[in-house]
Amino acid sequence: MTTPKQSAEATIESLHRIFTVPEAPDSTLGRIERLLSENLEGFLTSHIVAKEKPLQEIERDFAASTIPEQPEFVSDHAETLLNKLVAHSVHTASPRFIGHMTSALPYFLLPLAKLMVGLNQNLVKIETSKAFTPLERQVLGMLHHLVYGESEHFYTTWMHSAEHSLGAFCSGGTIANITALWVARNRVLAPSSSFSGITSEGLVAGLHHYGYKRLVVLVSERGHYSLSKAADVLGIGRKNLVAIPTDENNRINVNALRTACAEITAEGSKVMAIIGIAGTTETGHIDPINTMADIAAEYDTHFHVDAAWGGATLLSKEYRHLMQGIDRADSVTIDAHKQMYVPMGAGMVLFKSPHLASSIEYHAEYVIRRGSKDLGSHTLEGSRPGMAMLVYSALHVIGRQGFELLINKSIKKAEYFAEIIEQQNDFEVITYPELCLLTYRFIPAELKEPLKKANPEQTKAITPLLNSLTRFIQKSQRESGKSFVSRTKLTPNQYHREPTVVFRTVLANPLTTEQMLADIIIEQREIATQAPRLQAEIIELARSVGLL
Amino acid sequence: MTTPKQSAEATIESLHRIFTVPEAPDSTLGRIERLLSENLEGFLTSHIVAKEKPLQEIERDFAASTIPEQPEFVSDHAETLLNKLVAHSVHTASPRFIGHMTSALPYFLLPLAKLMVGLNQNLVKIETSKAFTPLERQVLGMLHHLVYGESEHFYTTWMHSAEHSLGAFCSGGTIANITALWVARNRVLAPSSSFSGITSEGLVAGLHHYGYKRLVVLVSERGHYSLSKAADVLGIGRKNLVAIPTDENNRINVNALRTACAEITAEGSKVMAIIGIAGTTETGHIDPINTMADIAAEYDTHFHVDAAWGGATLLSKEYRHLMQGIDRADSVTIDAHKQMYVPMGAGMVLFKSPHLASSIEYHAEYVIRRGSKDLGSHTLEGSRPGMAMLVYSALHVIGRQGFELLINKSIKKAEYFAEIIEQQNDFEVITYPELCLLTYRFIPAELKEPLKKANPEQTKAITPLLNSLTRFIQKSQRESGKSFVSRTKLTPNQYHREPTVVFRTVLANPLTTEQMLADIIIEQREIATQAPRLQAEIIELARSVGLL
Repeated sequence: MTTPKQSAEATIESLHRIFTVPEAPDSTLGRIERLLSENLEGFLTSHIVAKEKPLQEIERDFAASTIPEQPEFVSDHAETLLNKLVAHSVHTASPRFIGHMTSALPYFLLPLAKLMVGLNQNLVKIETSKAFTPLERQVLGMLHHLVYGESEHFYTTWMHSAEHSLGAFCSGGTIANITALWVARNRVLAPSSSFSGITSEGLVAGLHHYGYKRLVVLVSERGHYSLSKAADVLGIGRKNLVAIPTDENNRINVNALRTACAEITAEGSKVMAIIGIAGTTETGHIDPINTMADIAAEYDTHFHVDAAWGGATLLSKEYRHLMQGIDRADSVTIDAHKQMYVPMGAGMVLFKSPHLASSIEYHAEYVIRRGSKDLGSHTLEGSRPGMAMLVYSALHVIGRQGFELLINKSIKKAEYFAEIIEQQNDFEVITYPELCLLTYRFIPAELKEPLKKANPEQTKAITPLLNSLTRFIQKSQRESGKSFVSRTKLTPNQYHREPTVVFRTVLANPLTTEQMLADIIIEQREIATQAPRLQAEIIELARSVGLL
Repeated sequence: MTTPKQSAEATIESLHRIFTVPEAPDSTLGRIERLLSENLEGFLTSHIVAKEKPLQEIERDFAASTIPEQPEFVSDHAETLLNKLVAHSVHTASPRFIGHMTSALPYFLLPLAKLMVGLNQNLVKIETSKAFTPLERQVLGMLHHLVYGESEHFYTTWMHSAEHSLGAFCSGGTIANITALWVARNRVLAPSSSFSGITSEGLVAGLHHYGYKRLVVLVSERGHYSLSKAADVLGIGRKNLVAIPTDENNRINVNALRTACAEITAEGSKVMAIIGIAGTTETGHIDPINTMADIAAEYDTHFHVDAAWGGATLLSKEYRHLMQGIDRADSVTIDAHKQMYVPMGAGMVLFKSPHLASSIEYHAEYVIRRGSKDLGSHTLEGSRPGMAMLVYSALHVIGRQGFELLINKSIKKAEYFAEIIEQQNDFEVITYPELCLLTYRFIPAELKEPLKKANPEQTKAITPLLNSLTRFIQKSQRESGKSFVSRTKLTPNQYHREPTVVFRTVLANPLTTEQMLADIIIEQREIATQAPRLQAEIIELARSVGLL
């Protein structure tokens, strides 16, 4: 018979065991590890995108609100995870999952990720990361070189300098964008001889000291929603994030931008930052970076480029010219977990000047002491994992030339897809690809040509029904789980800027074949036939407004 | 002979291969995976803390600033990583690494982490995460229940509600704290009938509308540096993060807090938030939460508890009373990657009211649409990995009872360590453990008793030299790499609040034995003998100021 004390000791003993490395590959944990790996491989090679099961049903498996009292065997738990979670997660690696920026990963990163997690380094300080610190600084240096191409001397001087920073590694593009605008804001309201700076005094005192009515951030209407969050968090206000209209290719209208700068300055306000987009989230278009840099210089304002998506294009000699002028940006956001094929959680912001991050510098007594090389002194986040290792590995194993091939192939695949869409008599491209993104929609065959000549009133009348049809097709396709495209709402010039729902595709998965793209068209057409009443309604309306 | 075109095709072919699952365990990648696993196991069972190699030397291996042109074989790259990176990272899992909050991980989490990374879900939206979304909501619900203990009906109603949120999963405690204060700020300057709210109008307009001179955040002088960052980022200004003095146990002086509230309110400013600390980073002490909740209620202000470190103590029935009143907090930060033994990157902020997060709600056209259950609508971050899965697994495999044992044992171990330190004639405890943290220092034997009776002038005279000695011991110990304690600077009451450098230990690793703690004392004493001149100087000075 065991006494309660003996049993508590036995439990402590078994708790100890979970913190030690299993002795042999044929241990229970060894077997579980193989089971998980096999299941993961099965999942990654499966050709569906998601199993058909309504979210409400899945939620039933995740309904308990109490932390379980008793420990559970790892083997039982692993079974539960595989059946309830993995089986109902999304196959983001599927080559038919072409709706979002989350794509397949190179398989070699998975054992490396396990290594990275197992080492459990904390990059906030040298004492918990040692070699990972210079590694992260090197990764930031390499990306800085990719964007700014400074001299070897520059990198020898700054890359590992304790008091300087060529960028900040972040959990993602949102934190990267917030960090960039935080730097911009703090520089505009910097300390002076009679003012100790916004960092210490706050925004109100800063505006008062410099005599600005308000701070304004300018970005095209295609700007990512993280910029609205940033304007809110930083106290600027979303109203003062001014959306500049775009041209017919979703690029910022530089004349409108220049006018806005002039007006804001004339009213006694300050343009705190101009943001160029290098790869809009919805359509993949790139703003005229070089001209924007001119305007930023003219108004002496921080120029940030949000290249979270498109930044990797700089790895392609064939296409990097699309971002000409990016080396004039004060700061640039790049997400390695997008077109650099690294797992989720690898955002970066790069600073042109190694001195820039001093406006957001922090120190504490027990970590990130002054003069230390602790990375925590120049990041918004505190404790952070060693994700930079996975970027480092991807850069080395794939190499610049490998990335060039991947990127070029993605863009050409998107161009091919646009071509075959336009060849269909019942589909039309809404935005053509500049990078590997394009948007399109299904349209009843007899309407395709007439719609192109529709006047604003006719377009306004017919678009809501077409939007319903696009929504219906996208949702049905997603629910059936064989393939996936996303959807968004654009205001295309060719349709008199009428809010238009479109399919959005991101063709970054190298395993997506031309045949799969052709199949998606067939599948969507087939789904459209399941909405005969809606289609009939569209045709009827088209007749009544004189389109047919 | 291969033409350039053939060679490009061959490269594309081999690039394809890296995105597909290796067929057999005896494939090259299978072998590399085993090599990495074995190396990781060796690393995790090794008894040293870090290899002795100066950072400057390590930096030489990470000096190149150019992205390599050519791809590298995974096997070669893995070798490089093991030799240059892994060999010179920090053994945070070592039971002799007792200086920081990063500790050993239960081994079963490593294959699960690989699974999580391999699935590459993006939690910002259902379309890229599906079952991971209800899972994350459940994890937040379970932690919410741990803190607030609401009824089953409460969780059935709110846990999976699209428009509500019981908390936000974050990359870490810093983002969690910023999120909590962001919510607090936006509630203080909320929309009204004649004002569209700070979110839209910005901080200046908000203060103007409500007629507040400034917003102030109150926290004890032991507050984490992330709060300074938050005050800066949110536009409040660090000056307006007011540090309230602590008592002799590093707990906020509630009378001083009440006085500050009264003064700030009287001057026409607004106390935006009061922050209680449940486990200070430096000493592990817990503020009188319940009394602070009273004061917050009195001044109608947001009450946030930063329990990043101590929150897990709620899992212990024996010790959760230390945090009495935490269920009255409007928001609570807990880091699962601290005392819940989950890998880096698992921060959480919990909201008492499911409606609270509406003040930071965001929507966009292509994701996180209104009415969707997309988690991105209530988080500061955008794209995020499925880390909640690892918290879920830890909660299930260890169970509440398992966590209770781990936490109780850590605290008792810290109490034991404090006891043996005090038994030494040449060491003294500076702060006693409330949780599993304590601080102490070496002190020449003949000085230990006299110093306790030193007057302020004598203390002021002698402390700088004692600080140098503590620093010397901590650095030498770190550099020799056999064991590690961190150091910080405190202002102990018993030493007339003279800034005093101390060793800081965190005893969270379940594998740390009493023998190892005894060995650390011996090692530090041995290092102290390597500074005979400094010790002689201390004794001489002690004599000259009349202490000896």
